[in-house]
Amino acid sequence: MVEWLMKRLEDLYPEMVELRRIFHAEPELSFEEEKTPERIADYLEHLGIEVKRGVGGRGVVGYIRGGKSGKTVALRADFDALPIQEETGLPFASKRPGVMHACGHDGHTATMLVLAKALVEQRDKLEGTVVLIHQFAEELAPGGAIAMIEDGCLEGVDAIYGTHLWSPMPLGEVRYRHGAIMAAADRFDLVIHGRGGHGASPHETIDSIAVASSIILQLQHIVSRNVNPLKSAVLSIGSFHAGGAFNVIADSASIVGTVRTFDPEIQEMIIKRIEEVIKGICDAMGATYTLDYKKGYPAVVNDPYETNRFVELAKTVHAKELVFEMEPVMGGEDFAYYLQHVPGTFFFTGAGNEEKGIVYPHHHPKFDFDEAAMLIAAKCLGRAAIGFLSVSEQAERKKEQAL
Amino acid sequence: MVEWLMKRLEDLYPEMVELRRIFHAEPELSFEEEKTPERIADYLEHLGIEVKRGVGGRGVVGYIRGGKSGKTVALRADFDALPIQEETGLPFASKRPGVMHACGHDGHTATMLVLAKALVEQRDKLEGTVVLIHQFAEELAPGGAIAMIEDGCLEGVDAIYGTHLWSPMPLGEVRYRHGAIMAAADRFDLVIHGRGGHGASPHETIDSIAVASSIILQLQHIVSRNVNPLKSAVLSIGSFHAGGAFNVIADSASIVGTVRTFDPEIQEMIIKRIEEVIKGICDAMGATYTLDYKKGYPAVVNDPYETNRFVELAKTVHAKELVFEMEPVMGGEDFAYYLQHVPGTFFFTGAGNEEKGIVYPHHHPKFDFDEAAMLIAAKCLGRAAIGFLSVSEQAERKKEQAL
Amino acid sequence: MVEWLMKRLEDLYPEMVELRRIFHAEPELSFEEEKTPERIADYLEHLGIEVKRGVGGRGVVGYIRGGKSGKTVALRADFDALPIQEETGLPFASKRPGVMHACGHDGHTATMLVLAKALVEQRDKLEGTVVLIHQFAEELAPGGAIAMIEDGCLEGVDAIYGTHLWSPMPLGEVRYRHGAIMAAADRFDLVIHGRGGHGASPHETIDSIAVASSIILQLQHIVSRNVNPLKSAVLSIGSFHAGGAFNVIADSASIVGTVRTFDPEIQEMIIKRIEEVIKGICDAMGATYTLDYKKGYPAVVNDPYETNRFVELAKTVHAKELVFEMEPVMGGEDFAYYLQHVPGTFFFTGAGNEEKGIVYPHHHPKFDFDEAAMLIAAKCLGRAAIGFLSVSEQAERKKEQAL
Amino acid sequence: MVEWLMKRLEDLYPEMVELRRIFHAEPELSFEEEKTPERIADYLEHLGIEVKRGVGGRGVVGYIRGGKSGKTVALRADFDALPIQEETGLPFASKRPGVMHACGHDGHTATMLVLAKALVEQRDKLEGTVVLIHQFAEELAPGGAIAMIEDGCLEGVDAIYGTHLWSPMPLGEVRYRHGAIMAAADRFDLVIHGRGGHGASPHETIDSIAVASSIILQLQHIVSRNVNPLKSAVLSIGSFHAGGAFNVIADSASIVGTVRTFDPEIQEMIIKRIEEVIKGICDAMGATYTLDYKKGYPAVVNDPYETNRFVELAKTVHAKELVFEMEPVMGGEDFAYYLQHVPGTFFFTGAGNEEKGIVYPHHHPKFDFDEAAMLIAAKCLGRAAIGFLSVSEQAERKKEQAL
Repeated sequence: MVEWLMKRLEDLYPEMVELRRIFHAEPELSFEEEKTPERIADYLEHLGIEVKRGVGGRGVVGYIRGGKSGKTVALRADFDALPIQEETGLPFASKRPGVMHACGHDGHTATMLVLAKALVEQRDKLEGTVVLIHQFAEELAPGGAIAMIEDGCLEGVDAIYGTHLWSPMPLGEVRYRHGAIMAAADRFDLVIHGRGGHGASPHETIDSIAVASSIILQLQHIVSRNVNPLKSAVLSIGSFHAGGAFNVIADSASIVGTVRTFDPEIQEMIIKRIEEVIKGICDAMGATYTLDYKKGYPAVVNDPYETNRFVELAKTVHAKELVFEMEPVMGGEDFAYYLQHVPGTFFFTGAGNEEKGIVYPHHHPKFDFDEAAMLIAAKCLGRAAIGFLSVSEQAERKKEQAL
Repeated sequence: MVEWLMKRLEDLYPEMVELRRIFHAEPELSFEEEKTPERIADYLEHLGIEVKRGVGGRGVVGYIRGGKSGKTVALRADFDALPIQEETGLPFASKRPGVMHACGHDGHTATMLVLAKALVEQRDKLEGTVVLIHQFAEELAPGGAIAMIEDGCLEGVDAIYGTHLWSPMPLGEVRYRHGAIMAAADRFDLVIHGRGGHGASPHETIDSIAVASSIILQLQHIVSRNVNPLKSAVLSIGSFHAGGAFNVIADSASIVGTVRTFDPEIQEMIIKRIEEVIKGICDAMGATYTLDYKKGYPAVVNDPYETNRFVELAKTVHAKELVFEMEPVMGGEDFAYYLQHVPGTFFFTGAGNEEKGIVYPHHHPKFDFDEAAMLIAAKCLGRAAIGFLSVSEQAERKKEQAL
Repeated sequence: MVEWLMKRLEDLYPEMVELRRIFHAEPELSFEEEKTPERIADYLEHLGIEVKRGVGGRGVVGYIRGGKSGKTVALRADFDALPIQEETGLPFASKRPGVMHACGHDGHTATMLVLAKALVEQRDKLEGTVVLIHQFAEELAPGGAIAMIEDGCLEGVDAIYGTHLWSPMPLGEVRYRHGAIMAAADRFDLVIHGRGGHGASPHETIDSIAVASSIILQLQHIVSRNVNPLKSAVLSIGSFHAGGAFNVIADSASIVGTVRTFDPEIQEMIIKRIEEVIKGICDAMGATYTLDYKKGYPAVVNDPYETNRFVELAKTVHAKELVFEMEPVMGGEDFAYYLQHVPGTFFFTGAGNEEKGIVYPHHHPKFDFDEAAMLIAAKCLGRAAIGFLSVSEQAERKKEQAL
Repeated sequence: MVEWLMKRLEDLYPEMVELRRIFHAEPELSFEEEKTPERIADYLEHLGIEVKRGVGGRGVVGYIRGGKSGKTVALRADFDALPIQEETGLPFASKRPGVMHACGHDGHTATMLVLAKALVEQRDKLEGTVVLIHQFAEELAPGGAIAMIEDGCLEGVDAIYGTHLWSPMPLGEVRYRHGAIMAAADRFDLVIHGRGGHGASPHETIDSIAVASSIILQLQHIVSRNVNPLKSAVLSIGSFHAGGAFNVIADSASIVGTVRTFDPEIQEMIIKRIEEVIKGICDAMGATYTLDYKKGYPAVVNDPYETNRFVELAKTVHAKELVFEMEPVMGGEDFAYYLQHVPGTFFFTGAGNEEKGIVYPHHHPKFDFDEAAMLIAAKCLGRAAIGFLSVSEQAERKKEQAL
């Protein structure tokens, strides 16, 4: 069946491209998706796949139930777009002003729809069920994943796989990671309240700029002293605004920063330490503060066992030397929530192509990806899905490992 | 002559008020004074006083040459106004939109013109010369004083006196200070040039906010460690602006600050130290910087001997208990330049009056002063001038001191 | 009487020198003085002066009651020595190993004894009483002054004068100051308690050196931001000791510092701010601390009126141009306590002499002073004492001032 | 052969214990080893193994040449002891006062000697050569490895394996790591040269404690801002000593610190940044400095491929669930140098045993290890050596992987 599936995906590649361009031309913003989920659901139903619409609000879930009983594996593709004015000049560019598929979710969707088409053709041979999770609103917190999970999309699911087409990696590469592959990305807004006054009379004021500067220095100790040096964490201040006149001590200072972590314990420790540092320095200087710490998506933490399984399977359908471990990416993904409920793995599918001028980063008005990456993604996801479900394959693998 | 002069000034007080209101109604901005100096010069010439117009550009200098030979004493009054929209509601309020005598220079001018009128009446008894320096552009650096000095207004002058009508002090007070009475007020603009980048990848950036914060902390050592604790200095940062996004490390950070000193050596030391600190921290952190340090007016440093003389004389025409030493004022005055050439003293004449609602600070749209302060100022300046010139008085005083 | 007194003091100068050398040879440590107060008391009693011994423990107070009734003026001289091994090589050097009159208190004592001898000879003409306060233990906190005051040495006293022979000033100078002439000198001992551990695992520790360093930086803000720039204050850290091994994070860090102020309000503010800063930073970093703040002698604050009186009187017996105002000295003196009870003034009598090689600072093993300074001190103190008591002189002075 | 070897090692375990105790009783310090290498060389020669003595000075290298041609694999054991007075009370405790095998090198040596005895018995079946590297002076920089490598001990070697008996891990565990398993541990000594002076006159000094404190704060930015957050690094200050008196500003301040890294690029960056920070702050504050940075051993970086091979082989002779990846250890090892020349892996063999009271850390006077760990180490090293050399095994493994 593996060989057949790979061949079939290759044959269906033109349809994948066609679908992707349709979605690309009509992007919809997070939490405003209407036409996209309808089109997805219609496509799947047309294939004879059982579909739930409006899952968690705007999500679509399809169920390919195999001819034989077995486990259940989920695949996920997100379908929302971004508030960006497209500047690619592509013939199938966005028809909606100010909205653009600038992160490749159009490709994720097309990939999974065509994979579904191929899989459903071999439904009889499937030992179990493939759940197709078409997710809305990945780009905007709190994201669509939480709502879809609460609405039951993971019920009965034993494992989940997902991928991101990734233009900073060259086409051909398939990169995985055991453990954390994407960071938790938080934001905090801090206002220091001092007491303004004349620059010549600092003793009658509480100098909010001096307080805020001291806090920024003291915060460095969190990463340098409080984080286990074998763990990763970032604390960066992105913005500092205070005062207007050269000779007036500013009443307040506003700071905005971000925290990136892979480990929830480190994240919680940093949240606690940030407030301790701010409060301590404010107390030391007679100032007060307002702190608003907003957690973003948690870290995407791949299950090592499922990652191993995926890697072994992927290497059977893609050039081995192009499948390799990667450094984690500091950005966030709400795929993280699925992995908090079921084991699975999230991998990156290289989609850049310098020769074709596909060099712009995600979220850029000129962002594009090499569509050939969709075929690689479809093969890897398909292979992982049927490999997970295949009882005989697993037995064989176990035997090998026991040698 | 002293008694006569005091009596005459009291009689002429109504004219002082009238003149002040004329000037008040037609304020002119610094370096744009045209009608005001004409009016001053005409008034003095009308009294038969020798006048030089256009001194240093827009200044007016009058010469009251006494009947007897002797020393030369200068008195100074400034006559420019401010770019402020008057909100006093006074009947003689500014007729010029956006321009206002919000610092009392109208009063200074009226005071000196009427004093000149009285003095010239007793010209025969004067032992020497009184030079009347009507200065333009005190409010705007580089000020009018430098140009008038370069144009010769201090030639032959042995001593100089001046005063500021001062609404934060109650009417009746006359306050002097041995040594520095007003600070040198400088400004500096600093831009830290780092290298921006993603907040999650600080190692690929030079974090301009971290650099600027470090500089602000390190600058504290200048006042706490480098300034002689028996001397005064202030270094305050009034404004700090950097960055826009929470997850982007800012390319550059802009800081604006002020330095206040009374002692030119301390001022020079601080200027040198500021750049050393900035350069050192930038080097330590891999950043570069642009620093623009602008010296304001130097400190107004009264001559102790002339201050003593003034105090003794003032106490003979004003209630002794209301003539007393004051703390220095942190603001600047270009009277400082005159004192760099000839000895003299600058004093403050209380002009506030809570009962009359005269409570607004200088440069405020509702600023006013109690006009009665002009009479006190005229008496003190007049007494100082003739006291300085009177040979016999000086001899007597020396004898007293020798007792 | 003034002229007579000056002449008599000149005549008695050799005895002053002789006495000084006797005291110099047999120095006694603070709170261990036995022979010195006996010798002082015997000398005074021998002159027929009423003496109280053991005042406040080891002090001696003499009373020269004048022939006419009047006010009471006190003069003070301290008589303790220091735990220093003398290295002057003088013929009259200390006979006691490790103990030395290295601050000139031998000279203070000799000066006042001989002044007493002269004054008592003119007792009949004195209008009031001169109280001679020979104080023990000036060098060691809490000093002898408090105990002597509690034991009544200031009872009935209207004013007090004192001086310090001062080798950093050339012989001939007599220097006074209106207001604070010597600082309050406090000490604080701080221990930061962190949690030690391996240098490679900072996250398991609380790095006491990082905490202490942060505190030292943050403390700079007290002088740079919290002290009125027109006031003086110093906060210096003299010692920092923590850790032993390069790869072990230190459990605790010990810091010792000093605070110098002239104004009790500033002093109290700084004490409060130091603890706020320490507590705030410790809270920010998870550390705790032990702080022991010890106030030293308060600032010596001269009464401006008595200082004026002293200056006028001193100028009648010493070269006017050598009597002038000085910058305050940052060291402490328990003469401060007398001035908290009665008005008075403390002045410095120049006693250095480069030509004679008298160049070593106070408390140095080679310290010496030019003995001629004792005569100047005696003249000034004597003139001040009889000037204060003389009713007619005062009347005359008032008249002069009224001119 | 594998089964035979394992069985033979178990039979020889008593000899391993006996040998270990002989070495334990006669420890020799690094670079002073004489008797120990003699004993090792004699033992090997006695087995008929070709031996080179004095390799790199004091090292011993044995060559077990197999009956069939093939590759060459090296095993390494170190044999030096520490300047510590043993306090274990063991019957075979050190006979040399102040010298102790407190790090288990006695065990390493016994393990390898007995493994050699077993291997040589099956010499005919070996496909290639096993090189036995008995290294001197691991405990003291620059270590013995460099000299032995320069003297040719790695000539012809294709791979190298080594282990450390490790009392902080329980007996039974075998822990490996892909990539860096032990850190580079460097030390730096910094002296800040300021200018001392009186604590009350900071403006006449350069406050070395303030400078050093500022440096310590600024150094935090290296880890928090300059190190890639996905990499590990530690910079800790272990000691800070400056000043003696509370009221004297210290002339100089001495700081000692350590840097731990796994990546030479990060290490070099930190070395560069440390000096930039120190120089920048010194320049900012007018101080100078002396910095002595001493690199320790580089990081021990395991080859991922050889680590994989080792793990697979180890799992065939030891309980699979007890063979697992570990976090890196922050301490240093000069095994690092071998891995700079040939691929290989260094692993840890658990040797702690709470029940037997074997709980003391390495380098402790009561340090001991559970001798049963030697058998586990011998089995793993032996299995790895013959597994590496066995052509047929490799072929089989490749086939499996290809499945």
